[in-house]
Amino acid sequence: MASEVRTKAALAQDATAIMNRLTTEQKNTALLRMADALLTEQANIIAANELDLQRGREQGTSPSLLDRLSLNSDRVAAIAEGLRQIVELPDPVGELLEHFDRPNGLKINKIRVPIGVIGMIYEARPNVTVDAAGLCLKTGNCVVLRGGSAALESNRKIVEILKNALHATDMPADAIQLIEDSDRASVNEMLKLNGLLDVVIPRGGASLIRNVIENATVPVIETGAGICHTFVDESADYTMAVEIAFNAKVQRPSVCNSMETLLVHETFAGQHLIPLAERFLQAGVELRGCEKTVALIPGTKLASDEDFGTEYNDYIMNVRIVSDLDGALSHIRRFSTKHSECIVTENKDNAERFIQDVDAAAVYHNASTRFTDGFEFGFGAEIGISTQKLHARGPMGLPALTSTKYQIFGNGQIRG
Amino acid sequence: MASEVRTKAALAQDATAIMNRLTTEQKNTALLRMADALLTEQANIIAANELDLQRGREQGTSPSLLDRLSLNSDRVAAIAEGLRQIVELPDPVGELLEHFDRPNGLKINKIRVPIGVIGMIYEARPNVTVDAAGLCLKTGNCVVLRGGSAALESNRKIVEILKNALHATDMPADAIQLIEDSDRASVNEMLKLNGLLDVVIPRGGASLIRNVIENATVPVIETGAGICHTFVDESADYTMAVEIAFNAKVQRPSVCNSMETLLVHETFAGQHLIPLAERFLQAGVELRGCEKTVALIPGTKLASDEDFGTEYNDYIMNVRIVSDLDGALSHIRRFSTKHSECIVTENKDNAERFIQDVDAAAVYHNASTRFTDGFEFGFGAEIGISTQKLHARGPMGLPALTSTKYQIFGNGQIRG
Repeated sequence: MASEVRTKAALAQDATAIMNRLTTEQKNTALLRMADALLTEQANIIAANELDLQRGREQGTSPSLLDRLSLNSDRVAAIAEGLRQIVELPDPVGELLEHFDRPNGLKINKIRVPIGVIGMIYEARPNVTVDAAGLCLKTGNCVVLRGGSAALESNRKIVEILKNALHATDMPADAIQLIEDSDRASVNEMLKLNGLLDVVIPRGGASLIRNVIENATVPVIETGAGICHTFVDESADYTMAVEIAFNAKVQRPSVCNSMETLLVHETFAGQHLIPLAERFLQAGVELRGCEKTVALIPGTKLASDEDFGTEYNDYIMNVRIVSDLDGALSHIRRFSTKHSECIVTENKDNAERFIQDVDAAAVYHNASTRFTDGFEFGFGAEIGISTQKLHARGPMGLPALTSTKYQIFGNGQIRG
Repeated sequence: MASEVRTKAALAQDATAIMNRLTTEQKNTALLRMADALLTEQANIIAANELDLQRGREQGTSPSLLDRLSLNSDRVAAIAEGLRQIVELPDPVGELLEHFDRPNGLKINKIRVPIGVIGMIYEARPNVTVDAAGLCLKTGNCVVLRGGSAALESNRKIVEILKNALHATDMPADAIQLIEDSDRASVNEMLKLNGLLDVVIPRGGASLIRNVIENATVPVIETGAGICHTFVDESADYTMAVEIAFNAKVQRPSVCNSMETLLVHETFAGQHLIPLAERFLQAGVELRGCEKTVALIPGTKLASDEDFGTEYNDYIMNVRIVSDLDGALSHIRRFSTKHSECIVTENKDNAERFIQDVDAAAVYHNASTRFTDGFEFGFGAEIGISTQKLHARGPMGLPALTSTKYQIFGNGQIRG
């Protein structure tokens, strides 16, 4: 007998033909029904969520994780509102991207089409279940969801409600599949389902991502890892530099676009590093520095290469004093995960060189790296932030969930 | 000590920073020097090639493979001319793809950038060595070439000449690397070089492609497999149908965009299948048919599901009679590798449904599937034909060898 994973992925793949034909209006109608159903059935969702919370408490889950897992009436309303916002976004499917008229009379269109079946592997809060389903369905894709076991009861109830909401619509209920098998083997089975899954998108911590990269034969869109730097150049405006660096580190340290390492030009450091460091120390940020930093800021721990290569996602920051722009570029080349990098400078030539030379999904001049985000970029949605160079790089909006197809119109052309 | 593969990939990765900064003119100058050098040194190339041919003859290589491997003065000239044609193509790097002005004053550009280091794994003729290098370098990428052992001496000499040609140019010789270790282990090492290789592109037979897909942790662009169908609808023009089907099968059966299975509407088959089949039989094409076909064309072998799922790349063709468009769509959904599919029909509704419903890189109305090709599409070059849905789908021109980067210009913006 086929496994749960294979059976459900095959149902999703079978549903792609119908999804592919749906109009934007048909998709939007279905998404609105789903939003309504989540509100109507919120008591059932909260009850299922309570089972997850109870199991979590019994297993000693930390209060902060329990809080992320927990759903209440406001949170369910926010999730439903998220679906309504997806309805408002333009539908990329069907967009004519290119057209060529060939000398032999062939007319060639390149148009956007759904990818097919998207496998989402995640460990985050139950809102990801609805959010990912909404984005995939809006773009005409089917989705196979594999959430973390901590949210299984919540996810099960949510997906049941979403599927039921589709019964009176043109969208097939099979377009949404939830893998309920919480064994790691079900993830690994998904990773090898070439032909049934067209892409796998992992969202979660480093070990989840690594497992996907190492084991997938299905194409993957890698998301997440961010060792981001801010380089404060010699000519930087002091107030701007402090505000940008502080925002990049402290506003939300747990996310991938926050800063891990501050690089400071030695002249700027000589004049300003002491008060700058003070600002971070007062906010409870632990500093780890290069030898020059340690000499300037007594009590600072010496940073190792391992520190410079670590994504802390926490109130810890490396500081390195560099002799010039080249020193900063060289450090970034060595330690960057190519996510988001920033230069703060009043020197236009240096800004241009940094923007040109740094190889990253997002390169900033005089703004916080925290802006690397689909909503901040104006995409109205985000399925994740790609840290690979193929297909999509940086924040991924709806077009990142599409592929393309060439349509060729002839009148009997054959190749000579 | 680091292996040959790791050492050379690291040299290429180090060269990306310089490649990234080159202007189109600098790249073109380098490519023209390479073309000149190939001509100047053609005697040395042909001598090295003779060593490969000699070894091939000793090992009993087939005459057709020896012919493909063989270089002479005309072939070297054609290879050099190929480089000159790449010079003439527009450079996609630096192209501004999108621009957003955000309400907070951030200005965001999305621009095309080189991917970085491209690993090419191939088993074809030595011209692929030059062609792949030219396309990668034109797009500002470095390239790690791993050709088949049968062409090792030719490839070694060619790459030596190409690298020497770069000495007086702004392009670093390290941008081109040839892996000389002909053991399969060197391929498998390339497939796991995350961080040093940014993408691997395999070009070759099914087993080479399968090995790459199954073992790569580096992102892959899958190329090649093509089980292509031509559906001759009830209303098809007889002459057009025969010409298109014959061209799709017979003009060059060994390539991925040639047809493997002819689907014929039962009404059309009743009227025309006998003379149509005769045309193929006279050209030496072996037919394998469904039961109805076998009944109509005595002596035809019965086609199995395995036959329908085989890319023959040869003078063999499956024939299936279907009752209508839906029968054709259902067969294609089951057996297509989503490469190129064609409908021959005078019925506009059926043409539209076929074009809309068939999930393939290229879908044709009234033209031969043989046109799925970068040159035929007007791209002026082709690094391969992608049969996956991410990043690039169908014939890949120069833009398929680029990634993107967001450049964000601020004046002190921080996230609230």
